[in-house]
Amino acid sequence: MSLVSELESAPAGTARALGEVLDALAYNEAGLVAAVAQEATSREVLMVAWMNRESLERTLEEGYACYYSRSRRTLWRKGETSGHLQRVREVRFDCDGDAVLVLVDQTGPACHTNRPTCFYLQVDGDRVRVTSEPL
Amino acid sequence: MSLVSELESAPAGTARALGEVLDALAYNEAGLVAAVAQEATSREVLMVAWMNRESLERTLEEGYACYYSRSRRTLWRKGETSGHLQRVREVRFDCDGDAVLVLVDQTGPACHTNRPTCFYLQVDGDRVRVTSEPL
Repeated sequence: MSLVSELESAPAGTARALGEVLDALAYNEAGLVAAVAQEATSREVLMVAWMNRESLERTLEEGYACYYSRSRRTLWRKGETSGHLQRVREVRFDCDGDAVLVLVDQTGPACHTNRPTCFYLQVDGDRVRVTSEPL
Repeated sequence: MSLVSELESAPAGTARALGEVLDALAYNEAGLVAAVAQEATSREVLMVAWMNRESLERTLEEGYACYYSRSRRTLWRKGETSGHLQRVREVRFDCDGDAVLVLVDQTGPACHTNRPTCFYLQVDGDRVRVTSEPL
């Protein structure tokens, strides 16, 4: 049984070493976990991306969200070129260890289209509507 | 260029037929998009799971979140056995069409451990701490 599975029945306050939990995450065949960024103040969900163990460690060490770009096959410090950094306020893992929730202070727009969130396509009956203006 | 890519530069208010957008989503090699469930009132992120086209259609038609279980290889109406249903308030897709955000009214705990959210493992310095009590 993995450490993450053991913690399913653990009482509130139980603690384990960070390194052991990072070892025990349920990385997929590409070594990745799904990462959800949520704005810490507005509580808006900003984006979904991916992290590998190295990007998780950088995120935690540096205090700014760092993802893994599947298309470029490289670490991707969010905002490194755009300046739209995500200052990390809190990091949480889920019950089966294959997803991470990162609460952030988002500088500028989160989306590459310069919209505040990547989730700007809203279902409206039998239509899908763009909810915010691009740059 | 896919319909989802076209919409990147579309002004607010632009609308497309739901079926066309569902056709144009960037399903992965297993036919899935990542699905984030967020509590509509508390704004808490509850869980990350997966949806295929059929589970998306059921979610939208029935008004309750329906996922695709990768382990059981079948549709999974959230709460069908536990009663912990997720009434759908809003569905949004992201800029690259590979993730869906579902705002829900969560009945009971979202997590199979009977915790309010699946994200109960919180990083605290060099430790990871269980933030809430299981059943």
